Amino acid sequence: MELLLSNLQTPAFLVDRTIVEQNCARMRGRARASGVEFRPHVKTHKTIEIGRMQHGGAIGPITVSTLAEGEFFADAGFRDITYAVPVAPDKLERTAALARRIDRLNLLIDSESALQAIERFGFRFDVFLKVDCGYHRAGIDPNSGDSVRFAQKLSKSAAVRFHGLLTHAGHSYDAKTIDGIRRVAAEETACLTRFRDASGLATLVRSAGSTPTMSVVDRFENVDEVRPGNYVFYDAFQATIGSCAREDVAVSVLATVIGSYPERGQAVIDAGALALSKDLGPHHIDTKFGYGIVCDLKLRPQPMRLVALSQEHGKLEAAQPPPVGTKLRVMPNHSCLTAAMYDAYRVIAGDRVVDEWRPCRGW
Amino acid sequence: MELLLSNLQTPAFLVDRTIVEQNCARMRGRARASGVEFRPHVKTHKTIEIGRMQHGGAIGPITVSTLAEGEFFADAGFRDITYAVPVAPDKLERTAALARRIDRLNLLIDSESALQAIERFGFRFDVFLKVDCGYHRAGIDPNSGDSVRFAQKLSKSAAVRFHGLLTHAGHSYDAKTIDGIRRVAAEETACLTRFRDASGLATLVRSAGSTPTMSVVDRFENVDEVRPGNYVFYDAFQATIGSCAREDVAVSVLATVIGSYPERGQAVIDAGALALSKDLGPHHIDTKFGYGIVCDLKLRPQPMRLVALSQEHGKLEAAQPPPVGTKLRVMPNHSCLTAAMYDAYRVIAGDRVVDEWRPCRGW
Repeated sequence: MELLLSNLQTPAFLVDRTIVEQNCARMRGRARASGVEFRPHVKTHKTIEIGRMQHGGAIGPITVSTLAEGEFFADAGFRDITYAVPVAPDKLERTAALARRIDRLNLLIDSESALQAIERFGFRFDVFLKVDCGYHRAGIDPNSGDSVRFAQKLSKSAAVRFHGLLTHAGHSYDAKTIDGIRRVAAEETACLTRFRDASGLATLVRSAGSTPTMSVVDRFENVDEVRPGNYVFYDAFQATIGSCAREDVAVSVLATVIGSYPERGQAVIDAGALALSKDLGPHHIDTKFGYGIVCDLKLRPQPMRLVALSQEHGKLEAAQPPPVGTKLRVMPNHSCLTAAMYDAYRVIAGDRVVDEWRPCRGW
Repeated sequence: MELLLSNLQTPAFLVDRTIVEQNCARMRGRARASGVEFRPHVKTHKTIEIGRMQHGGAIGPITVSTLAEGEFFADAGFRDITYAVPVAPDKLERTAALARRIDRLNLLIDSESALQAIERFGFRFDVFLKVDCGYHRAGIDPNSGDSVRFAQKLSKSAAVRFHGLLTHAGHSYDAKTIDGIRRVAAEETACLTRFRDASGLATLVRSAGSTPTMSVVDRFENVDEVRPGNYVFYDAFQATIGSCAREDVAVSVLATVIGSYPERGQAVIDAGALALSKDLGPHHIDTKFGYGIVCDLKLRPQPMRLVALSQEHGKLEAAQPPPVGTKLRVMPNHSCLTAAMYDAYRVIAGDRVVDEWRPCRGW
């Protein structure tokens, strides 16, 4: 019997296959047209199915955020992986074991002490130097002479194979408009180019990646490799800052109304903090945005706000709260965090459930 | 070989067995001394091990937040369960299947439409009427004549076995001091008693439960059953509003410093939003509280703030950022949500890892 999404037990994480395919094709096409290496991040979905879809059905270079993801994708045949989080020194043994299994495992490095840890460990890792293009999370300061000297030292080190410069413009998420994102995008790649030129290491690969900055340009310029990730799903946040249209958001959480209180203009759904994650979303644009965009079964936004989440309850405010039993779909604020709450994704085509994909979990 | 917590791969969720046992014994002792039924919530930990510990090693009445928890604990021999979230109408079949396997499954009901759904379904469920004591999430208004009439109707209905009144003072979490919590606690039970008396149904069980209100009183009064849950672990939030001392917090997330940037007073740890959850914690008391209390390996708070979380990065601010490789323990803001991010808990006694407990997941 055909399973319809309206018959699923709730909460359920729905992935619209057609939209994911479109998002994948668009970004891959843009990379190809720009003549840059495409190394998409898999951390948003963590599934082999979408990992292949990002490369048009093939195995290709990818970016991961945990060693568990690296091992999971290596098991499925992926052989060129960048681990885009600085590695803890006591994970080097596990990291080397993964590197030995595949063609190439690129690590990030952003300090002398990280280089020393690799030297002490004694395995010749492939490395990228992490550059801080303004996000101020990890990475060396590209405007510092010390950073230039460190890059030159890396290029001469026998302890590593130094391939390139890697940055992540996470501050693009602070933008409020497409123009704001474009300004961050321009600086993201300019900063890599300036630093490469200052270091005199012309062969270094310039690798950039953030879904907002990769979504608002027609062509990737001044960059050799791109690593977007969230674009496969997008989410309410990305649609609000202008990375995508709402129609590009491929995921939603199916929920059921389990309490309806017209006398106080409220309802309760069975999707709470564990079903949606507790990301505030585009709070910098609208402090009353709520914990996702509440839609009907056809994903049409409804005049309701999801004002609070406790563990298994989501509290809705609405002039006319829907009755108990109503099914709703919530477009999540942050699809990466929401997806990670589920052991299995329900894959839909229209209103039919056509598949189930199981993500990698843990670290 | 003895495994020390400092040798665990990070991030890891640590549960201090001695503190959990103390927290369990204290709350159970208070319930016994007060002569009330003890039906602790298991949603915070979702493990059989702690479920038994809550009853001093025995099987006893429990409260669950999902059907998956109900089934998981029923499999382990628990036979008296309250499902403390209003049930979606299309989950009644699964709910009835669980009810048939055990001695008693209590459901919540808070509307005519929920009663009608049960009548249509045709299984005689045990029910509690959910009462809104001021939290305004689910529950009937105890001051309304309609609510009194609905209770009387329930008591005469042949479709259900009506046992009592159940409330949850979730607004105790909005308190800023112990006195504030005590005011909510007094109203929580007074409201149940007033409603019971107004309905003239003297045999109804009055069931209350929230960790803050159950933690700040010496004795439970004007109540017949208590259902605290978070108290097994407590967390940074509970310690800040005054539900517990910091020494009572049984859980922490072990993390490793993977980036250190003294020039900008920052460091990065390998515990981000997926390792800690993104709960703002006691933001109503301190908007700069951050995403948990950063401690050293002996759980002594350090002069550092965890100011931002991305998926796998936690960003620390500190005058003297710790070097790469440093192990830290983060006392989470909301232990229920943090625990749910892990497939296994690392159980510690002092600095030794002595066990591993696996929680129920999903819905």
